[in-house]
Amino acid sequence: MAFSSSTRVNLERFWSTIERSAEIGRGREGGLSRLALSDADKAIRDVFVEWCREAGLAITIDRVGNIFARRSGLDDTLPPVLMGSHLDTQANGGRFDGIVGVLGALEAIRTLNDLGHQTQRPIEIVNWTNEEGARFSPPMTASGCFAGAYELDWVHQRPSDDAATFGEELRRIGYLGDAPVGGRELDAYFELHIEQGPILDAEKTQVGIVTHAYSSRGFFVEFNGETAHAGPCPMEHRRNALVAAARLLVAVDDIGWDYADTGGKATAARMTAWPNKAGIVSDWAQAFCDVRHNDPEVAAVMAERVERAVGVSAARAGCTGKVFERWGWGGAIFDQQMIADIRTHAQALGYSTRDLPSQAGHDAYFMARVCPAAMIFTPCEGGITHNNNERATREDLEPGLNVLLHAAVGRADR
Amino acid sequence: MAFSSSTRVNLERFWSTIERSAEIGRGREGGLSRLALSDADKAIRDVFVEWCREAGLAITIDRVGNIFARRSGLDDTLPPVLMGSHLDTQANGGRFDGIVGVLGALEAIRTLNDLGHQTQRPIEIVNWTNEEGARFSPPMTASGCFAGAYELDWVHQRPSDDAATFGEELRRIGYLGDAPVGGRELDAYFELHIEQGPILDAEKTQVGIVTHAYSSRGFFVEFNGETAHAGPCPMEHRRNALVAAARLLVAVDDIGWDYADTGGKATAARMTAWPNKAGIVSDWAQAFCDVRHNDPEVAAVMAERVERAVGVSAARAGCTGKVFERWGWGGAIFDQQMIADIRTHAQALGYSTRDLPSQAGHDAYFMARVCPAAMIFTPCEGGITHNNNERATREDLEPGLNVLLHAAVGRADR
Repeated sequence: MAFSSSTRVNLERFWSTIERSAEIGRGREGGLSRLALSDADKAIRDVFVEWCREAGLAITIDRVGNIFARRSGLDDTLPPVLMGSHLDTQANGGRFDGIVGVLGALEAIRTLNDLGHQTQRPIEIVNWTNEEGARFSPPMTASGCFAGAYELDWVHQRPSDDAATFGEELRRIGYLGDAPVGGRELDAYFELHIEQGPILDAEKTQVGIVTHAYSSRGFFVEFNGETAHAGPCPMEHRRNALVAAARLLVAVDDIGWDYADTGGKATAARMTAWPNKAGIVSDWAQAFCDVRHNDPEVAAVMAERVERAVGVSAARAGCTGKVFERWGWGGAIFDQQMIADIRTHAQALGYSTRDLPSQAGHDAYFMARVCPAAMIFTPCEGGITHNNNERATREDLEPGLNVLLHAAVGRADR
Repeated sequence: MAFSSSTRVNLERFWSTIERSAEIGRGREGGLSRLALSDADKAIRDVFVEWCREAGLAITIDRVGNIFARRSGLDDTLPPVLMGSHLDTQANGGRFDGIVGVLGALEAIRTLNDLGHQTQRPIEIVNWTNEEGARFSPPMTASGCFAGAYELDWVHQRPSDDAATFGEELRRIGYLGDAPVGGRELDAYFELHIEQGPILDAEKTQVGIVTHAYSSRGFFVEFNGETAHAGPCPMEHRRNALVAAARLLVAVDDIGWDYADTGGKATAARMTAWPNKAGIVSDWAQAFCDVRHNDPEVAAVMAERVERAVGVSAARAGCTGKVFERWGWGGAIFDQQMIADIRTHAQALGYSTRDLPSQAGHDAYFMARVCPAAMIFTPCEGGITHNNNERATREDLEPGLNVLLHAAVGRADR
């Protein structure tokens, strides 16, 4: 039986693969806590590699731990079509975020194997290391390195809160590969992902066509003050870095609310202080926050407000404050031809579709810098994610899986 | 030579003892980082015990690690006069806070030894465990236990940020004694301490007569929200516990400023959140804050505002919030006769004096619950404390040392 317009993935096989994955690195009830380069991450990597080998794929691991599983094409000299996402999760993560993109790609390959269909171009699956950034900052570390945004040594030196570095942990779990990171030609990159937002679920739309990325700007901020006794030191002599950071986080939250009516968001995500103890005024604090908006110009205004709030918050607490690292992404980064092809395939398969932006960060954002890239979204219940209550049914996921299969094969058979 | 009104401490001997202490547990330049029950705390305890034995004192260690060093009286059946404070420091502490009270008491004993003067009542020096609360919360843990405010088992179970418990660390450093905690009669408790405020230094007054304690109220607060993705989750669906805690800390700081003109203070002291990571909304946060005012009624109003701010801050972030532990102290807790005696001795010695309240927490607050207690303050530069820049000269300390000597001997010879 040849690959045809009536070919569909094996939904039960895909679902049992998801369920097996959900047993590795269990978090709060039903969820996952599979932090990058942890023992649980090693365990799912080992199982994933075994699945890929059983599917006849050739495994390559690069020097930041990205796993590539390759299926030969009729012309193996052509640049491959790449599909994938990430198998790591947040500390209180779900069983679908990222994982659907990797295991959905595996299901597509298994379907091709069932049919004995060999594509013109090679096809590869990828599992990117540390997409979440839940253990090592920044997120999307390894796809960023693949795309040339981050230096290899810098990535290896990223610290975790538990003291080990990215490079040390990569070696410890046995996934410090020897393949160079990036630098090779790719035909295209597809990433299937749960929407992580409520739109598709609310509208009961089956497939999300991702047209562009929300504009997002992140800020790592540091405040410096001076320690003092929480008792006798008069208010006017205090330089409490914890207060400076708290004032910034409140300002950031207020900025988010100011743009909530147009879908803007601002997140007070992280704060640490020292000594951070009862009885003493803290002399040091760090905060991480971000702003996001569909309109790049509005996102720029929000970002400007955050920058100003750093100085104001510091001054009100008698401290100094500075943004010591910034990141940003967003805009019309995806390939227009791939977007059109995804829409055509989805409609040919009879699914309802909707154009929408991606609001979260994804490895596809970095991949769009080095090859044509596109994303396909599936619905998830209420848009809940980064939470053990993240949910999707096999029926939620089936349309996206089939669109990924047909779009990738269509591309690989060009 | 008998003890007389012309007797004075040996200032050079005292100063060299302070300098020796300042070599143990060095922190930032010139300061100390001698956290309770750490290796550095063990080291100063060992040295202190050796000094006491050299002075002919009998050592007793109780089950929370308090060290008592006893000098017999002519009638050893009488309740002893106790003098002391604490040898532990903040993470960025100075070399005088607490230490002057313990080593000043030692100097008083050494002076009596020089003269061969035996007091009517026994005199004891005490070093209280974990006054600072910089490693184990709450502060003044072991004097609180001595005074019956805290149960022994509860104290032993206090966790540190580095995972070890109070009891485990007490055993590890060899200071889990077998003497019962408290429960014996004391004649009086004297505590000499640097002011930790700017008043004496600014006025060039030599001795502070501590008339009462600032009214202080502390609040341990917990907020619960829900994790969510920092990207797609709309502002109106968020329940960010970190935002709730930040809003509380800002409200607390504002309360402090509202009462700054009458010497009120409010401190945002500590905050922790989980997962506290870029890319995710935190579902849990804890904060510690306190308010302090010289007027107990005003302190009560400030405390009431904090209680209301907990609910308001939680609600604005879509979270729940509750105060899960409170503490408070303050008021006219010191013994009026001892205060009068201290004033008389200071004036007889020719020192300038000033009545003033104590604004920080001290072990003397708990001791005032079980026996007559009083405090003597010495100036320190600019009132800077809980900071490596805490400074005092030997001339700053000399008057307080002599007042302690004379007041304690006066009491012990009754």
